[in-house]
Amino acid sequence: MRAAVLEEHGEPLAVKDVDYPEPEPDQVIVETEACGICRSDWHAWQGDWSWIGASVPEGQILGHEPAGIVSAVGEDVETLQEGDRVAVPFHLGDGTCSHCREGRANNCETVIPLGLSSIAPGAFAEAFPVREADYNCVKLPDSLDFAEMAGLGCRFMTAYHALADRAELRPGDWVAVHGCGGVGLSAIHIADALGAHPIAVDVREDKLERARELGASATVNAAEAGTTAQEVKALAGGGADVSIDALGIAETCQNSIGSLGTRGTHVQVGLTTGEEEGQIELPVDVMTMRELDFHGSFGMPLVRYEELFKLIGEGTLEPSKIIGETLSLEEVPETLASMDNYETVGIPVVTEF
Amino acid sequence: MRAAVLEEHGEPLAVKDVDYPEPEPDQVIVETEACGICRSDWHAWQGDWSWIGASVPEGQILGHEPAGIVSAVGEDVETLQEGDRVAVPFHLGDGTCSHCREGRANNCETVIPLGLSSIAPGAFAEAFPVREADYNCVKLPDSLDFAEMAGLGCRFMTAYHALADRAELRPGDWVAVHGCGGVGLSAIHIADALGAHPIAVDVREDKLERARELGASATVNAAEAGTTAQEVKALAGGGADVSIDALGIAETCQNSIGSLGTRGTHVQVGLTTGEEEGQIELPVDVMTMRELDFHGSFGMPLVRYEELFKLIGEGTLEPSKIIGETLSLEEVPETLASMDNYETVGIPVVTEF
Amino acid sequence: MRAAVLEEHGEPLAVKDVDYPEPEPDQVIVETEACGICRSDWHAWQGDWSWIGASVPEGQILGHEPAGIVSAVGEDVETLQEGDRVAVPFHLGDGTCSHCREGRANNCETVIPLGLSSIAPGAFAEAFPVREADYNCVKLPDSLDFAEMAGLGCRFMTAYHALADRAELRPGDWVAVHGCGGVGLSAIHIADALGAHPIAVDVREDKLERARELGASATVNAAEAGTTAQEVKALAGGGADVSIDALGIAETCQNSIGSLGTRGTHVQVGLTTGEEEGQIELPVDVMTMRELDFHGSFGMPLVRYEELFKLIGEGTLEPSKIIGETLSLEEVPETLASMDNYETVGIPVVTEF
Amino acid sequence: MRAAVLEEHGEPLAVKDVDYPEPEPDQVIVETEACGICRSDWHAWQGDWSWIGASVPEGQILGHEPAGIVSAVGEDVETLQEGDRVAVPFHLGDGTCSHCREGRANNCETVIPLGLSSIAPGAFAEAFPVREADYNCVKLPDSLDFAEMAGLGCRFMTAYHALADRAELRPGDWVAVHGCGGVGLSAIHIADALGAHPIAVDVREDKLERARELGASATVNAAEAGTTAQEVKALAGGGADVSIDALGIAETCQNSIGSLGTRGTHVQVGLTTGEEEGQIELPVDVMTMRELDFHGSFGMPLVRYEELFKLIGEGTLEPSKIIGETLSLEEVPETLASMDNYETVGIPVVTEF
Ligand SMILES: [Zn+2]
Ligand SMILES: [Zn+2]
Ligand SMILES: [Zn+2]
Ligand SMILES: [Zn+2]
Ligand SMILES: [Zn+2]
Ligand SMILES: [Zn+2]
Ligand SMILES: [Zn+2]
Ligand SMILES: [Zn+2]
Ligand SMILES: [Zn+2]
Ligand SMILES: [Zn+2]
Repeated sequence: MRAAVLEEHGEPLAVKDVDYPEPEPDQVIVETEACGICRSDWHAWQGDWSWIGASVPEGQILGHEPAGIVSAVGEDVETLQEGDRVAVPFHLGDGTCSHCREGRANNCETVIPLGLSSIAPGAFAEAFPVREADYNCVKLPDSLDFAEMAGLGCRFMTAYHALADRAELRPGDWVAVHGCGGVGLSAIHIADALGAHPIAVDVREDKLERARELGASATVNAAEAGTTAQEVKALAGGGADVSIDALGIAETCQNSIGSLGTRGTHVQVGLTTGEEEGQIELPVDVMTMRELDFHGSFGMPLVRYEELFKLIGEGTLEPSKIIGETLSLEEVPETLASMDNYETVGIPVVTEF
Repeated sequence: MRAAVLEEHGEPLAVKDVDYPEPEPDQVIVETEACGICRSDWHAWQGDWSWIGASVPEGQILGHEPAGIVSAVGEDVETLQEGDRVAVPFHLGDGTCSHCREGRANNCETVIPLGLSSIAPGAFAEAFPVREADYNCVKLPDSLDFAEMAGLGCRFMTAYHALADRAELRPGDWVAVHGCGGVGLSAIHIADALGAHPIAVDVREDKLERARELGASATVNAAEAGTTAQEVKALAGGGADVSIDALGIAETCQNSIGSLGTRGTHVQVGLTTGEEEGQIELPVDVMTMRELDFHGSFGMPLVRYEELFKLIGEGTLEPSKIIGETLSLEEVPETLASMDNYETVGIPVVTEF
Repeated sequence: MRAAVLEEHGEPLAVKDVDYPEPEPDQVIVETEACGICRSDWHAWQGDWSWIGASVPEGQILGHEPAGIVSAVGEDVETLQEGDRVAVPFHLGDGTCSHCREGRANNCETVIPLGLSSIAPGAFAEAFPVREADYNCVKLPDSLDFAEMAGLGCRFMTAYHALADRAELRPGDWVAVHGCGGVGLSAIHIADALGAHPIAVDVREDKLERARELGASATVNAAEAGTTAQEVKALAGGGADVSIDALGIAETCQNSIGSLGTRGTHVQVGLTTGEEEGQIELPVDVMTMRELDFHGSFGMPLVRYEELFKLIGEGTLEPSKIIGETLSLEEVPETLASMDNYETVGIPVVTEF
Repeated sequence: MRAAVLEEHGEPLAVKDVDYPEPEPDQVIVETEACGICRSDWHAWQGDWSWIGASVPEGQILGHEPAGIVSAVGEDVETLQEGDRVAVPFHLGDGTCSHCREGRANNCETVIPLGLSSIAPGAFAEAFPVREADYNCVKLPDSLDFAEMAGLGCRFMTAYHALADRAELRPGDWVAVHGCGGVGLSAIHIADALGAHPIAVDVREDKLERARELGASATVNAAEAGTTAQEVKALAGGGADVSIDALGIAETCQNSIGSLGTRGTHVQVGLTTGEEEGQIELPVDVMTMRELDFHGSFGMPLVRYEELFKLIGEGTLEPSKIIGETLSLEEVPETLASMDNYETVGIPVVTEF
């Protein structure tokens, strides 16, 4: 089958023939119908994340935001069968640790990231295996098409968990969103749909324009001066209730915390770059005296899909709005390379394999 | 009247005669019966906290942990009268901002710190004024004596709010306490009394010994090596559920975050020193991937005294256990100076004026 | 001045001249600009609620949902002055009990209901006094007009508190609303605006039609058969997450609980009639085995107005949509009498005095 | 093997020989080492609960609070093997519904009650089968012995979940416990250990005496007059924060709600008798006006055992204190019969088979 393989960090992915996967007893094989392309793919491709022990090896098939159809079923799998329409969250849990038993694969003590680890080849391929498939596969409602589902993960679902669960977003909250890539635009749409009031921050006008279309109450162009946090605070009547770093560089993280009012909550979603290597200097005395919260947020618990599907089914959330272009597997290498400049608007989704 | 005045940063306080205060319309005057001595007094005396705009001016009467008896009442005060036994939390709220209206003077948008601001002379004196007295004074139950109440604030009540509210401590939690000064020992006693399991961390054996007496399940001496966080994690079965930096230096803050298990909560209570000037480098990628929380905690909402008094009344909490020596106003300068070396064990309380 | 007075339970109110009020030291006088008419006025007029010690005495001026302009200020009042635009929630707190100190006048231990107690004459009058005015008056944002504010209270704000706070409504929740009077229609609009999915239940088609206009995902006409709860459950994919009794009779209360899925939450807002006298038989074993919650909900804490005003200011909530007709003080007696048959749709507001 | 069989409702159980069970593919067989005797067994034996569709059929082997050793393993079981020490909660989940996926077998949509359903023979026998064993078995820490574990379930764990989770017990809370059987005594010990202050209510002095030994701050003998709720309120400084009906008759349920202060929480644990048939008249207007909560509570989520085991391991909770007598399988029929008069004090545990 065809797959897009990371042969050398920083060099274009190679689209080539590889063996079709066979299921282990706990696995299913899923034929990919759609898979998003993500800034995390770009990080992996750059060779980032060695500082958290998560550097992706050369030889890896990337792709971690898939939806597809079960094509083969391992002998111990009980709840899935050939032909089932499924999505696979990027955080493959073991199904047995204390977090997994609460339905929180995203916090699994032995999590394996799909498409980002040698033992979990990814979904920029005609098909891919899923470990502990009974636990990790999410069955799709008939009403949700594959591309829409691919648009959900990992960015839309990450933004949903970050706001609904980790920020415990309240109606009426002022929500600053720093960085209007896939996570950021998702966060703006979600915040607006849930009765909160998003303020979009980015350095590119085309992304801020898209943010306004998706429901941003106000926007701040951060390119110009060192006053971003102050501008957000002024727009938010003294300080944001919730602020999210949807990018992952020192500046957006610090601006996000600086945007908060007393007792506000910052949510960190973006992982950092080679510049920060995972370390950012934070204003701890201000955080103490104003009782600010810093909440890390990673993926989304499996048990939260039900709520997300209800919201999409009733039309409250429309993940398709965040989808950018659709493309073919052959175009993945080029699209990934274009992310150097943060030029993509919305979430690109591969739909031809 | 006699008062201990900060005449020059870093030089011994001067105990001398000053004018007896007169109440403004919104104020009462409280005759001091007891007042704790605190690391914050030491910070103020050193001239710290200019980086958060909170440097204490020369000429200041220090002292911010008082209990006493109302001796004069301003004309607009409605709920207090001469002879009332009261405590005064160090964070004097305006009573009207949105936080104050929820009973959270500790988050007041225009808070004035008692004994740490030129417009709020402190309680290392025979008497001191309290602004917005109806709002800020806490009436004492008969069962609580003045020294015990002075032992409560700011450190005991800060530790209580940090654990019960900001960490949302759960029964059975492993709680790492970094730094066994007044806040830290209070945290250990509180955690134990509420069904959690504290692990005490300090560099001095006498403080760890006191921690064990107060209910620490285990102790770690951090003097020896760079493995403190790993030792705590091992004792806590993989990682603490809650960890508190009760001191406020880069090392304790970073160790505290490093002590946490997945989804754990760090609470920052200690304000930093001239070394950090309010900025500490934190491992944000790890905080993101393991969904850690960093919660700033400052003082305690006024509305939480009721619960605290019930716990003390029933004998569940015994703040008197944390009180170190009792002393006279004349001894304040020397005791404050001795804090250079972190030598005091427990909370010293001034009871003679 | 003119006022609508309850002279005899069940007989038409008398609109007549009464003395203009003088402020006590803690009071302000408010000139009424608008005041809603409410089912609670009807209950009071009928002589209900003796079973909870809340029967309204003859001689009472009714009216408890006012907005207006401060026209006189008592000598101890500090934060209000003549000309201030204010709303007055119907639950007048003392400002000093433990609930009031948290900003929860609705839970005050010595609450006085405006317009429903001889010591708090109501707002179906040109002006009315407000006790503990510093505490109880809510200043209006300029953007909110008086009729809109009158439309907010007590029903809209009660519905908001019931859903946002007492039900802890989550995005995507199925919310059954039993009874589409003022509270019920408010609840439907609010649930829809906050990303939840309301199912409206009533016996009248015109009210269900209005519910659909306000965002109901589905409707159930309860007039026909004893299967209301089953119908709601089917529409809600197995059972509602939240269900609210917005009327207050045995049938709506029991239907509401019967509409819930496992772990669902019923919120009781409506007070009962002379039929129930405050007692309803409930299915406690089912509530135990399915871990259902029954939450009483009364008014709204004062500290929640800020969030409500933000939501209205940004256009997320539009209380004006629930307002029915506007009318004059002279028309109050007749409109009140017409409530016998549940014929009013939306909230009638008196705007001429 | 020997087993105690319910041959006719109300007639003594028959201890007799039955076939040793064989495991289905998803099952394990557990050799019983200890099993508690429970009021639920007595209800089942009486033929109660037809009103919730849960009448226990004749021919049933009772016994639903077991701990033991795995003796045989079905072919699809992955995480258990012969010799494993396990406990089995009485609520056997399917492992796949949305509640089960959160680790909440107690809320399973297709729950099967162990020992109370024809398809789940109970543990008053030398051995018994466990469906979906990977999901439902709880591995025992080495430190916990079998009798102690049998003492945990269902009553101790039910009380723990009721207080820690359903009441969200806070330190310092006044907790009224109505009925001092196994659940009630457990609740008293737990509340005391977690920093709350229990008030015990019963009609028997020997049970109140035991309650005092277990940490009750105060006791009320309910035999005498209709003033129980008032007495509790007076002891609790105006009203309990939490109150639990640990018995399940109209009087205890109504007294429990009547014991609460404003914003208090009642937790219903006891299932009703043939007298109530599941229906109890409740004071809904008072519940509305004082914003009371009624929370049903059933069993305990599987994911909560970890916390419970930590608390027992550190000595904070001591379930062995609630164990009454230990006895043999042959004595079960007689002990069960003696429950007619509520004479057993503490939890009797069968330890000889
Ligand atoms: Zn796991
Ligand atoms: Zn991604
Ligand atoms: Zn304030
Ligand atoms: Zn202090
Ligand atoms: Zn937090
Ligand atoms: Zn009050
Ligand atoms: Zn009303
Ligand atoms: Zn289930
Ligand atoms: Zn039982
Ligand atoms: Zn509740």
